[in-house]
This record gives sequence, structure tokens and C-alpha cells, in this order.
Amino acid sequence: MKAFEQPIRIGMVGGGPGAGIATAHRAGMRLDGRYDLVAGAFSRDVDKSHQTARELGVDASRVYASYEEMAKAEAARDDGIEAVAVVTPNASHHPVSRVFLEHGIHVICDKPLTDDFDQALELHQLAESNGLVFTLTHNYASHAMVREAARRVRRGDLGQLRMVQGEFASGWAAGEVERDADNKQAAWRTDPDQAGEASVIYDLGTHIHHLARYVSGLAVESLAADLSTVVPNRRVYDNANVMLRFAGGARGALWITMAATGAEHGLRIRVVGSKAALEWRHEDPHHLQIAYPDGRRETLAQGGATLSEDAAELTRIGLGHPEGFLESFANIYSEAATAIAATREGKRPTRGELAYPSTADGVLGLQFVDAVRESTAADSRWVPLAPIDAIE
Amino acid sequence: MKAFEQPIRIGMVGGGPGAGIATAHRAGMRLDGRYDLVAGAFSRDVDKSHQTARELGVDASRVYASYEEMAKAEAARDDGIEAVAVVTPNASHHPVSRVFLEHGIHVICDKPLTDDFDQALELHQLAESNGLVFTLTHNYASHAMVREAARRVRRGDLGQLRMVQGEFASGWAAGEVERDADNKQAAWRTDPDQAGEASVIYDLGTHIHHLARYVSGLAVESLAADLSTVVPNRRVYDNANVMLRFAGGARGALWITMAATGAEHGLRIRVVGSKAALEWRHEDPHHLQIAYPDGRRETLAQGGATLSEDAAELTRIGLGHPEGFLESFANIYSEAATAIAATREGKRPTRGELAYPSTADGVLGLQFVDAVRESTAADSRWVPLAPIDAIE
Amino acid sequence: MKAFEQPIRIGMVGGGPGAGIATAHRAGMRLDGRYDLVAGAFSRDVDKSHQTARELGVDASRVYASYEEMAKAEAARDDGIEAVAVVTPNASHHPVSRVFLEHGIHVICDKPLTDDFDQALELHQLAESNGLVFTLTHNYASHAMVREAARRVRRGDLGQLRMVQGEFASGWAAGEVERDADNKQAAWRTDPDQAGEASVIYDLGTHIHHLARYVSGLAVESLAADLSTVVPNRRVYDNANVMLRFAGGARGALWITMAATGAEHGLRIRVVGSKAALEWRHEDPHHLQIAYPDGRRETLAQGGATLSEDAAELTRIGLGHPEGFLESFANIYSEAATAIAATREGKRPTRGELAYPSTADGVLGLQFVDAVRESTAADSRWVPLAPIDAIE
Amino acid sequence: MKAFEQPIRIGMVGGGPGAGIATAHRAGMRLDGRYDLVAGAFSRDVDKSHQTARELGVDASRVYASYEEMAKAEAARDDGIEAVAVVTPNASHHPVSRVFLEHGIHVICDKPLTDDFDQALELHQLAESNGLVFTLTHNYASHAMVREAARRVRRGDLGQLRMVQGEFASGWAAGEVERDADNKQAAWRTDPDQAGEASVIYDLGTHIHHLARYVSGLAVESLAADLSTVVPNRRVYDNANVMLRFAGGARGALWITMAATGAEHGLRIRVVGSKAALEWRHEDPHHLQIAYPDGRRETLAQGGATLSEDAAELTRIGLGHPEGFLESFANIYSEAATAIAATREGKRPTRGELAYPSTADGVLGLQFVDAVRESTAADSRWVPLAPIDAIE
Repeated sequence: MKAFEQPIRIGMVGGGPGAGIATAHRAGMRLDGRYDLVAGAFSRDVDKSHQTARELGVDASRVYASYEEMAKAEAARDDGIEAVAVVTPNASHHPVSRVFLEHGIHVICDKPLTDDFDQALELHQLAESNGLVFTLTHNYASHAMVREAARRVRRGDLGQLRMVQGEFASGWAAGEVERDADNKQAAWRTDPDQAGEASVIYDLGTHIHHLARYVSGLAVESLAADLSTVVPNRRVYDNANVMLRFAGGARGALWITMAATGAEHGLRIRVVGSKAALEWRHEDPHHLQIAYPDGRRETLAQGGATLSEDAAELTRIGLGHPEGFLESFANIYSEAATAIAATREGKRPTRGELAYPSTADGVLGLQFVDAVRESTAADSRWVPLAPIDAIE
Repeated sequence: MKAFEQPIRIGMVGGGPGAGIATAHRAGMRLDGRYDLVAGAFSRDVDKSHQTARELGVDASRVYASYEEMAKAEAARDDGIEAVAVVTPNASHHPVSRVFLEHGIHVICDKPLTDDFDQALELHQLAESNGLVFTLTHNYASHAMVREAARRVRRGDLGQLRMVQGEFASGWAAGEVERDADNKQAAWRTDPDQAGEASVIYDLGTHIHHLARYVSGLAVESLAADLSTVVPNRRVYDNANVMLRFAGGARGALWITMAATGAEHGLRIRVVGSKAALEWRHEDPHHLQIAYPDGRRETLAQGGATLSEDAAELTRIGLGHPEGFLESFANIYSEAATAIAATREGKRPTRGELAYPSTADGVLGLQFVDAVRESTAADSRWVPLAPIDAIE
Repeated sequence: MKAFEQPIRIGMVGGGPGAGIATAHRAGMRLDGRYDLVAGAFSRDVDKSHQTARELGVDASRVYASYEEMAKAEAARDDGIEAVAVVTPNASHHPVSRVFLEHGIHVICDKPLTDDFDQALELHQLAESNGLVFTLTHNYASHAMVREAARRVRRGDLGQLRMVQGEFASGWAAGEVERDADNKQAAWRTDPDQAGEASVIYDLGTHIHHLARYVSGLAVESLAADLSTVVPNRRVYDNANVMLRFAGGARGALWITMAATGAEHGLRIRVVGSKAALEWRHEDPHHLQIAYPDGRRETLAQGGATLSEDAAELTRIGLGHPEGFLESFANIYSEAATAIAATREGKRPTRGELAYPSTADGVLGLQFVDAVRESTAADSRWVPLAPIDAIE
Repeated sequence: MKAFEQPIRIGMVGGGPGAGIATAHRAGMRLDGRYDLVAGAFSRDVDKSHQTARELGVDASRVYASYEEMAKAEAARDDGIEAVAVVTPNASHHPVSRVFLEHGIHVICDKPLTDDFDQALELHQLAESNGLVFTLTHNYASHAMVREAARRVRRGDLGQLRMVQGEFASGWAAGEVERDADNKQAAWRTDPDQAGEASVIYDLGTHIHHLARYVSGLAVESLAADLSTVVPNRRVYDNANVMLRFAGGARGALWITMAATGAEHGLRIRVVGSKAALEWRHEDPHHLQIAYPDGRRETLAQGGATLSEDAAELTRIGLGHPEGFLESFANIYSEAATAIAATREGKRPTRGELAYPSTADGVLGLQFVDAVRESTAADSRWVPLAPIDAIE
């Protein structure tokens, strides 16, 4: 499909033993063969970091005790990393990403961009001014059928948009998972100091907010939110209903929770227009449903002949060969690789209309989090989300 | 299944040529053979009324020019109607129902009960004081699998309830249907004088509100709503998002619209508890889904061996024989027939825990409508729904 | 929809206490209000017959000790029955139907037509020569979406037909149900003397054979079959695989069983043509799936705007209002009522291209049963199904 | 999860420009990071072979004009390939695989093993006697949920097996694809000289045959088949119905076609036992359905808490993160890597009970192809599939 370029030399911060999302990042690097993972600060515990390095075939000489050290040392090497994957808890996304950006290293960061709006904006500006690629793994937008959805909306297939309804109703924390001493992820995601009191919004809310914006192409103009805690004794919010008003008049709502008992993943987006409506569900990621006013409901499959070039570019085999979660990460990593490779020739990064999520998306995500918190604190009143000049 | 009793003699107000929901009411009367339709005021146009009577085999001598005349004349006959089906537009539910109640005639009324809270309460009190059966056709609660859902919640299968998410996102008015001169239903349902400015809430909102209450068994304590009009030039609200807080702490949301392009029916209810979650969709009414914390999702089919007696009583054939919309009406009509037949022996009507919807449900429906309107008018602030002594 | 005619006076043979399919027949009579059930020989046990009559409101004077007596007495009355519903076990379909036909009474008979090919042919010829309506309740062909399927095939939407794959893989007798002394249906359906050694083919096989012919419009030219008994100690065949060759070259296969553990109903038909393929499943009877060469799969819902007039005629409410099993019986009964009413004016019965199943269908069903038995007995060799002059 | 070992040095034969399945093999190598692709004879056209090598980052010095040359040269290097992936058309699987086996190189070969039974047996014996790993990419058996299915059958969850129904009804060649000069795959797969007259059985039939055996754990004892050509002017068979009798008494059928218009992939397996039945569909590969006699149908999702260790080992992320087609290849490649790595220490390869497909599976696949051809030629008579001593 793509002409060969030298693989991107990449490092990783986070992703030590027992880590979850790092698995997806590493699969995303590998699947299309466009990265070499050559350095890492996988854990604050150096022994664990070396253990992970051994498992991954990373040379011990490039295992670092801290990310600061790693950025400095790698930037100094001729064969140093060109990019870094940041897969640490939210609170450290900002300091980690910043130091690599400062050393001229591209960043692929797990979402949310940061846990603070101003810090998000700072990273955005730093990446921009340094001419670096900064990708955020809002991976769902990189499923072929989500991109197909976004394309169809852009080209007018749905007519005028009227409603956008989204859900990220996961069940992963429906039980009292924080009581399980071995559940590292539950520990930090239910700790207000690490994950924020609005934990569920940082984690799942920013995903569905991004997806709603990505598919619809609409800006959220204001929102009214009701954050709640439904699992007893939990110290963070684990459930939210959010009503939305979009620029141009469309309305919508989001249901965001980590406590939807028995849910598999629970991510779903529906966009209703005057000419058609579409629906995509993560439980069935290689299909897209389109409903027409005459009562026909069309199921489109990844690889189908009627799909756009946008979807085709994200499809490895073709009709009838389901691609899933890891492929969505690989799609982000591959698009990032193309962008990074282009900078080797001194060009500034460019990003296609529907391509990988950026720091601008990250900034808007933090604005969304803050608005949800503000509205909840103000008895669910409508809170405007003003345009942000710095990311236009 | 049931011992034979003399069929209930019933009349109908409304349901003349071109009428929609009257078809379901008539099928509901017939399916179990427990009613004889013997009188009617089917249309304000007497010729049309006679036309309908001829089609239905109703004797011309019992076709009336007005419902007042019908109530009076039938009440005076030895073989007069025992019950009346009211299938007129919302605004006339109150005067029509009242006059029959005043003449000692049981009422089966289409929803909503009225278009006004006080009138609803009046009907409730009148039916109560006269010892008459008054059933409201919130028919969805009479699907076998919805009753199964309600039973499972009541007996604790779901544990403590946490979230209730409902949708009635129909597509029937996604187009500018009011421009079609022949679309009688579109005409009145988009006319604020006939259907109310909050038309979509009276029509669809009261259904999903009832369903949410019925399945969860929870009272809505307060709500925050955002009514909107998404189809251009429409004179009524056709879309709403509503956030809910239930007694006991559960949270929820409703999406209510008549403009969901391409939707079939769009009615869906999900209830999440600490031990399990359930989902019922009208597009697949003979199944019920239960999701468990261990990741298993169970699909139960009407007629299955593990279902409750409540569901079995609403099942005519058995496993693998889908029952649908008309059967849900027949279920209401049959339960009403049992209640009405019991009053022949002078008893006051009694109603089982999960049986047919009553005037109390109707009163709560109107309270819901008013709260949605009030919240919308007040920038979506939370509006409490106080307990109503008169219906306790 | 239809102008009123005097209801058809109908009687029933079979359908006493505990009977199964009689429930569907009675619902089929009632739903559209076109029949009055006024006579019956519901059980060989006269007391039970009277019990059923009381439950159904049939006058005791028209409850008969035998079907012969009933035919004779009713034929002699001015207000005697015009039609009879035959819902007895297979072996008596022939003698019962014959005596009513001989008395000039129309017949609506449960399937299979008989348990013997020659007897089936005799009934066919008797109905023809007497100018009587004889309907067979292969009810699945009367679902709106099945008729839609048949229409689309007839008008060429699928192009040239290539494959027809059918299943009736029910689970009702996956357990050793014949050990349950109270299971009346299991008793006779697993008794080779009453249900035939090829019980599963008489019961389920004739249904899927009819459905395959009905939807495809193709004649089965030859078949190769493998009957087997999969449940231990069973005295009849309960499972079959059948390979089919159709006139015109299409190929196909049927899987027919009553022992598909956990299956709901298990009836499914797929027809593949050069331009499109369709699929209908009984578990979701109000939808039809059409797949196109470009990878789009369309789901059509009953009541949709793109459906044929054939489907619309079998739809009572409209889009989004599921109709099910009982409605399919009502569709047969209503079409039969129209045909019967027409004979009141002395006309011979006529039948539309896609209308209710006839004795010709019944004869072909018996031919199919015999061919399956013959092929099985001959080590699954191909057995031709010759055209039958008498039913052309 | 797994300790790091030096990646397996692998080469590839086939997979030049425009190749299809090679994409899956290469993704399978990469996803878990356990292979280095370092040599290749990607095309008979050396220029094209070099082009592919450049795209893949394979050094030009290790691009070979022929597979013989490649085997010889690589075997002579200290850092020569340890394994080869064979992704050429069927007819060359035997000569290519043989030469690598003769040079002591492990083989991962696309299916079918060969196009000739004796050649298959020869490869089996050669791999055995040389102590080499030989894996066949019947990849579907390496989906987590298929392995779960196989495990549940093995441990008795389904009780005694009664029926096995399989389908591989693909639509890829429903059109006259052989007329498209650019469709390389269509060209060879419809050429009886290259793909065999029974093309569809070699290609798709061996897959579903393997899957039926793998999930059920049963041997096919005899079969009766009807091969046909449904697309006009096609020179190979493109459709088949096959009836099966399994050791132990279970019955079954397969539908195998490449001409199922509009089908996505069309692979599906159902196994019915006395205690439960299961179904797996490739269109939804991360789920498994289990139906129980009481009418409950359970949907299990990959990553769920109730799954076996066998499934868990093939799951990279966890509940709610769909894995698809490429992951099934990666599962085979990773299990092969473990087996190959173990031989580095001089051990003979061992294979777990449910692990990757072997030459024995390949031999049985060829036996199946031959039996289908023989039965078709003999008017679909039953053909026994005798046990093969050499593979026990």
C-alpha cells in the first residue's frame, strides 16, 4: 500500500508490567511495520522498566530511570528516537509531553491530552511552534467505518444535521473495583487526586465528545450536565448525563458512565440529519448503519464497494475481514508515521481533513471537561463553550 | 386460558375513516374474543360515522351524532354498552371520558389521559368515586417481555437500580409531514392548538415516561429538560432531551422525538442495576436482554421456560411465536375485560401490581409534561415532581 | 380497509382443552372480525368439547359428538356453517376435510394437508370439483415480509435465482419430551402411528418446503435426503438434511429438525440471485434483509414506504408496529374470508398469484415428504419430483 | 505476557505486488513482535519481488529469484531464516514447502496444504521426520471465541453432540469476476488448472471442514455432496452442498460457495448438543452464542470473565475491545513462534490440544476435497472418509 520508509524510531513512557492501554499502543506501532520501539522509561521502578524492555527487545542501554533523562539522552543521539508514545496516567501527560516537545521529539499521547485546560493549550502551542507532530489516541475516530461516517456527513449525505446522540456507557467499573488491590487501573481512575473528581469525563467523556465532534463536524456551543456517583463509596463521579446544543442548531445528549453493569464497551454515536441518520457502535466496529426516510436501513461493511476513499485507506484486507480495536490504533500510528516521515525532509506537519486527532482536539476535550464540571456545580445550567482563538 | 364470560358490550368514540390508532384498539378488542363493539360515534361527520359502522358491523341504530348523545342513550338501554373506547385527539379525552364516567360506563382511553393536569386528576377522581374501570393504552407496558422486565426489577434481580435510560425516537415526522394535506394525524399533531406546543411530549413523552416508571418501579423526583424544534417551520416542539433524578438516587435520561429520520419506532428502555442491566426494544418486542457483570448477555424470548408467570399470562402461543403491537393492545383490553366483568357482580375494580395503566399513571404523565415545559422555559433548570396525594 | 360483509359462519374440528395450534386459528378468525365461530366438535370427549364451547361462547346446541354429525347437521341448517377449521392431528385431516367438502362447506385446514399423497390429491380434486375454498395454514407465507420477498423475486429484483437455503430447526423436541405424560403434542408427534415415521418432515418439513417454493417461485426437481434420529430412544425421525435441485438450475438445501437445542423457532429462508440475495427469519418476522453485490445490506421493515402493495395489504398499522405469528394466521383467514364471501354470489373461488396456500401446495408437500423418505431409504440417492398433472 | 525471545527470522514465498492474503500473514507476523521478515521470493518477476522487498524493508541481498535458491542460500547462512511463510497459489504449496522442509526450515503455509492428498501426506511425513513446525493458516480456528467454543465442547458443556451445521457462503465471486483482467485472484481461482475444478472446496471448503472438525472435535465418517456451478460460463465449481455423518452419530451439513451475492464473508458454524447449542459467525468474530434448552440465549464476548483460559490466551486487551481477522493470523503466528523458539533448544515441536492447525489437518482437508469430488461424480452417494494411519 505504502512505499517503504525507514521505520520511525520511537520510545515509550509508561507501559510497564501490568499496563493496559500500552498494549494497544505497541500493537498500533507494529501492525503496519512502520515503527521501531528502541527506548523507554516504562516504569518509575527501574527494575520493572528493565523487565519490560527485555520482553520487548529494547536494549538495556536505552532504558531510562526518568522521562527527563530519556528525552535528553535520546535527543543527543544520532540514532535517537524521533517520536515518543506517552501512556502514563493523565496527570503526567503534560510534563512528559512537554519535555519531549522541547527536545524536538514528536509525541503520540494517550487521551486526555492533559488534566488541565491551560496545560493542554500550552502543549498545543509548543507542538505548533516547534513544528512537531502531536497525535492524541482518540482511536475510535480512526476506525474505517467512523471515518466513513464523518465523510458522509461532510459531503452532505445526511442533509442538515438535527440531532447527535452519543453514549460511552462502559461497565468496567460497575463493581466496586477499587477494592481490588491488584487492579492498578481501578486504583488511579477512582482516585480524585490522580484522575480528577470528574474521572469518568476525562477518561470516557473526552472520547465520546471527540467522536461526536468528529463524526458530526459540529462544534458544541453549550451544554448542561448532571454528574453523579452511582456506585457506593466511590470517590469520583462515575456517571453523567449531558445535554448539548451545537453550532447551527442541532441538539443532542451524551450518556457517559463507567458503571453500566454488564456493558461490553458501550460506545455508540448516532447522527440524525434531514436526509438520513447514521449509527456506529463499537461492539460491531466494522459496520455502519444508515437509515433513510423511506424506512430502509442500510448496513455498510468495511471493505464494501460503495465506501469512500477515506474508509478504504484504513482497510487492510477488504470486505468480510473484520478489523477491530488494535487496527484503530494502528491507523493512528500509521497516519502519524506518514506525518512524521514527512518532517524528515524539513516540512512542517500537515494533517488531512479527517486525519488523526490533534492537540486542538485535546484542548477542546479539556474545555468540555471543565464545562461539564461547571454545569454540574451550577445545578445543571447551560454553560457556553466559547471558540478558542489559539486553536483555530 | 380463561373461562368464558359474556363479551363486554363496548362502544367507540372516534376511529372514523382514516383513523390510525383505532385500528389497534379494535384489534385489541377482537383478538381474545372478549368484546362486542355495538355502538359508536366514530366521526363528527355523521355520514362518515355510518360508513365506519357499516364496515364494522355496528347497527345503524346505535351510531350517534355526538358522544353526549351516545352516553345518554346507551346508558338508558338494558343492553347498553358497558365500556367505551376513546380514540379521539388528546384535547377531547377529558370531556368524552367524563360524560361516560358520569353515566356509569367504564373507559378505555388512548393516551395521554388529557392535555391538562387538573382535568386528568378530575377523571381519576371521577372513576374512583364511581367505582369504574379506567384504562389508559400505554400499551408498551403490556408486552410480555416488558412485564417480565418489570417483574425482574421488582423481585430484585437487578439489585439496586442505578440508571434508567429511555428513548422514544420515532421518525414519523422527520419530514415536513404537515405539508401533506391528506395526513390527518400530522395535521393535528403539529397544531399547537390541538396537540399542545409540547406535542411530542404528550404523544411520545408520556409513553416513555410511563415505561420508565413501569419497568423501574421508581418515581421521578425531578427533571431538567430541553425541548426543541428541529424540523424547519414546525409550530410545535418535535424533539426533547430530558435528564432525570429518581427517588432513591438513580439517574437517567430520555430522548424523545418524532423527527428521528429513518427510525422505525425508536422506543427503547434500559435499566441498570448493581447486579444486572436490562434492555427492551420495541423493534424486537418479543425479546428481552439481560447483561451480567461477568460479561454474559442473555437474550430471553417470549414463551421461554425461565420467564415469570406475569409474562406467561400475556403469551398466547409460546416460545418462538412472536407477538407484537396488536397483542399488546389485546393484553390491555383483556385485562380490562377481566376487571370490568368483575364489576358486574358489584365489586369495585381491583388492579394487579403490574396490570394495565390507570388514571393515576395518566395524572403522572401530565405532571411530567408540565415539568418538561416548565424546565425548558426556565433554561433547563431542575424541576421537582412532587408526590400527588390524590392518586396515592 | 375492507368493506364490511356478514362474518363467515365457521365451525371447528379439534381444538379442545390443551390444544396448541387451535389458539392461532381462533386468533386468526378474530383479529379482523370476519368470522363467527358458531359450531364445533372440539374433542372426541364430548364433555371436553362442551367445556371448550363454553369458553368460546359457542352454543351447546351446536357442539357435536363427531365431525360427521357436525357436517351433516350444519349443512342442513339455514344458518349453518359456511366453513370449517380443521385442527386435528395429521391423520384425520383427510377424512374430516372430505366430509365437509362433500357437504359443500369450505375448509381451512392445518398443515400438512394429509399424511398421504393420494388422499391429498383426492381432497384437491374434491375441493376443485365442488367449487370450494380450501386453505392450508402454511402461515409463514402470509407474513407481510415473506410476501414482499416473493414479490421481489417475481418482479426480478434478485435476477436469476441461484441458491435457495432453508432451515426449520426448532428446538421444541430437543429434550426427551415424549417422556412427559402431560405433553399431548409430544405424544402424538413422536408416535410413528399417528405422526408417521417421518414426523419432522410432515410437521416442519412441509412448512419450509412450502416457504422455499413460495418465496423462490421455483419447483423442486429432485432431492437427496438424509433423515436421522438424534434424540435417544425416539421412535420417529427428528432431523433431516435435504439437498435440492430446482427447475431452472438453482441449487439448495434444507435443514429440518425438531431437536435443535435452545432454538426459538428456527425458521429461515435465504434466496440468492444474480443481482441480490434475500433473507427472512421467523425470529424477526417484520423485517426482511436484502444484500447487494456492492456489499450493502438493506433491512426493510414492515410498513416501509418502499414495500410492494402485496406487503402493504398484509399490514394493519404501519412502520414500526411489529406484527407476528397470530397476524400471519389472521392474514390467511382474512384472505380466505374474501374468497369465501365471493362464493356467496355463486362465483368459483379465485386465488391471487401470491395468496393463501391451497390444496395444490398440500399435494406438493406430500410429494416432498414421500421423496425425502424414498431418498433416505435409498442411501440418499437423488429422487425426482415429477410434475403432477392433476394440480396444474 | 510472554517473555521476550529473539524474533524468529522468517522469509516469505509469494506475496508480491497485488497479493491478497500475504497482507494478513505479514500483519500476523508483526502484531506481537515475534518475527523479523528478512528474506523473500515475493514474485516470479524479480523486479516485482525487489519492489515488494523495498516496501517491506527486506534487504535486496536476500531477495531471491526462486524459492529453491532462497531455501538453499538461507539454509547456508548463520543468520538465515528459521521459518518461511508460503503464500503462493495452492498448486505450489507442495514443492515450495518441501524444499524448505528439506533444508530444515519451519513452514507456515496458507491453506489448503496442497492440491493433492498424497503430496499433503508427504509434507506431513517430512515435517514429522525432520522435527519441524509446520503450521497451516486455517486462521478461523485461532479466533479466541472459536477456541472458546472448542473448549466448551471438549469439556462437555454441550452434552452429547447431535448436529454440526457449517457455512462458508462468501460472495466474492458472485459476479463474473474472472472477466476482470486485473483481478489476479479471480483469474487463478477460476482456472481449473491452477485451482482445481473443485476450486471452491480447496479454498473455502477446507476452511469450514477444518472449523467443523475443530469446534466439534468429531471426525467426519462419510459425506454426500453436490458440487455445482451457479455463475454462467464459470470453469470451476463455485457452489456445494455437503451432507455429513460424524463418528459417534452426529449429523450435519455444509454450504460452501463463493457466489453468495452480497455476502460479506459468510462463515458460520453451529454445533448442537443435548445440553446446549453454540453458534459462531465470522461477521461478529468477538462474540459466541450459546443457546440453552430453557430458551435462554447467551452472548459471550471476548474478554469476558466466564471464558476459558484458552480464549484468554488469545485475547490482547480484554472485554469490549474487538479483535478481528488479522488478530486470528497473529494468534497462529504467535503460537508458531513459541513452537519454533522451543526447537532452538533442540526439542521436537509439541502442539497443545487446541493449538494451531497442522499438516494432519491439511491431510484431512485433502481427503475431504477428494471425497466431495468423488461423491459428486457418483450422483451424491455417501463416500466414507477412512481413518488415515499416517497422521494418527
